[in-house]
Amino acid sequence: MYSVEELQRIVNEEIVKRASELKKRDPAELYAPVNYSLEMGGKRLRPVLLLLGYNLFSDELKNALPASVAIEVFHNFTLLHDDIMDHARVRRNQPTVHIQFSENNAILSGDVMAFLSYQYLMECKSENLLNVVQLFTQTAIEVCEGQQLDMDFEERMNVSAADYLQMIRLKTAVLLACGLKAGALLGNASEEVASHLYDFGLNLGMAFQLQDDLLDTFGDQQTFGKQIGGDILANKKTYLLIKALENASAVQRKKLVLWMDKTGYDAKTKIEAVTAIYNELRIKETTAAKIDSYFQSSEKYLQSLPVDEMKKANLKNLSAKMLKRNH
Amino acid sequence: MYSVEELQRIVNEEIVKRASELKKRDPAELYAPVNYSLEMGGKRLRPVLLLLGYNLFSDELKNALPASVAIEVFHNFTLLHDDIMDHARVRRNQPTVHIQFSENNAILSGDVMAFLSYQYLMECKSENLLNVVQLFTQTAIEVCEGQQLDMDFEERMNVSAADYLQMIRLKTAVLLACGLKAGALLGNASEEVASHLYDFGLNLGMAFQLQDDLLDTFGDQQTFGKQIGGDILANKKTYLLIKALENASAVQRKKLVLWMDKTGYDAKTKIEAVTAIYNELRIKETTAAKIDSYFQSSEKYLQSLPVDEMKKANLKNLSAKMLKRNH
Repeated sequence: MYSVEELQRIVNEEIVKRASELKKRDPAELYAPVNYSLEMGGKRLRPVLLLLGYNLFSDELKNALPASVAIEVFHNFTLLHDDIMDHARVRRNQPTVHIQFSENNAILSGDVMAFLSYQYLMECKSENLLNVVQLFTQTAIEVCEGQQLDMDFEERMNVSAADYLQMIRLKTAVLLACGLKAGALLGNASEEVASHLYDFGLNLGMAFQLQDDLLDTFGDQQTFGKQIGGDILANKKTYLLIKALENASAVQRKKLVLWMDKTGYDAKTKIEAVTAIYNELRIKETTAAKIDSYFQSSEKYLQSLPVDEMKKANLKNLSAKMLKRNH
Repeated sequence: MYSVEELQRIVNEEIVKRASELKKRDPAELYAPVNYSLEMGGKRLRPVLLLLGYNLFSDELKNALPASVAIEVFHNFTLLHDDIMDHARVRRNQPTVHIQFSENNAILSGDVMAFLSYQYLMECKSENLLNVVQLFTQTAIEVCEGQQLDMDFEERMNVSAADYLQMIRLKTAVLLACGLKAGALLGNASEEVASHLYDFGLNLGMAFQLQDDLLDTFGDQQTFGKQIGGDILANKKTYLLIKALENASAVQRKKLVLWMDKTGYDAKTKIEAVTAIYNELRIKETTAAKIDSYFQSSEKYLQSLPVDEMKKANLKNLSAKMLKRNH
């Protein structure tokens, strides 16, 4: 059994090793942005989840390590392309790839990362490898669908809570779930047990994303990392805004829509005004309850997993940490 | 044994069927460009080569049909992204995807096509499937490397003939070779025989791309399809230009470089002037000899393939057709 911190260190070392190998490859213009992206750091959450899923069933970490690199490389591929599409200029306090290099670089280096992720994945020796590749592919398709929905919602006013939950399921939750299930399959867990772990990850992922939305408005500036109120300023149709519009009185709705349509406003004033309406509507509590409901579901799946309680402790700890955002 | 024309019809029907299934999927904004791209048509050369490779060893076409769709979907994914990077506005006489839809659409729908190609590929039932997925992945990485080199060469003056041949090997030839080898592996050919077919495809692909370059300058406007002289106007560093710069006298080189640097020229005058220098240097003959040398190599690999001569006839016919560009 490895601790979460040990796994984080192990996977990070492996990613940095692979990144420096890639840096030596030709053409340099293709691989430099890959290296840049992988060396930017980050929490390495997805590979750690994969290794935790694997470690429930096997201690031979080296058999799953290439797959853990694969899921991180895949995740970073989505960041390269999403950042172009969302015109994001900064990630992890550094210029995004299309800003640091060029848009063409971000497209093509992103593409090669998608295929590198398959190459790493297939280094794993396992009877279940084809199943894992299939799961990975299905997940990748869903992540694209989630990103499309996210972009579509920017143009739409009639986004329901159900629409939103479906979007974050596809864009965020399925990849966390995929990591856990892939790890379990590589550790030779049965399809049934591995699917159980998938459901744990799916519910955890939903709670995780909703928590991120909640902290964007109600978090502590010191520990959150991003600017508080960013979603409000961007009129992002998060669970908070959708529930607010759903539950608002005619007067409250009118105020909200006015703030969404307004241009040339003072940022602080808009954040305070919208937050005030959220408070009137108890949106913080509504969202927290939803997070809790997903968290409870994830716990239930974890409890019923036919694995030693000792071994589950890591997953329990990590999921608690993820939702408190201490990391 | 199926004829090339039958295979073309079969694969085209299957692609159109898959494309219309995709059109029904959500989100529509993601799948509409996929459908548009796949229904644009084209020669379906790569899937036909895959089926020809397969058909040498098996008649049960349906086992390889999903892989043939996969390679066409992959090829079209590269077109979506290359057309953004190259700012190409027209393909097959229709607006490119990023013009018809949007750049974001072309990025994300391209991405999902890359993953769809894996999904289709893995529908094939074969003991060799993991090998095929590995080959496909390696090839995809090489195609990205080829596109990067192609873009790099635009900025570089010192591109040698060897550099250029390496670029077209990666960008074009390996995918044709991959199709043939994947087909053979799915038909349960041995690794040795399948690799032989790969080498046939690689040499054929080199001849095919050089032929395309040759026709761009020396082709017949009626049958070529594209505008004759396009490469000259774009200063594209094809085999023709590279060999011309390599073999030119000081005076000829000065003339060539002048034309390359010139702005505000008359298109017809530039094409005629550069073609005249090519003629002085016998570039048409030099290129034709190179094409012939690759074609001879491909023939040699085909001849030594331990398969009935009758069965090879299709590959022979198709490669002759490809190089005469009757199709």
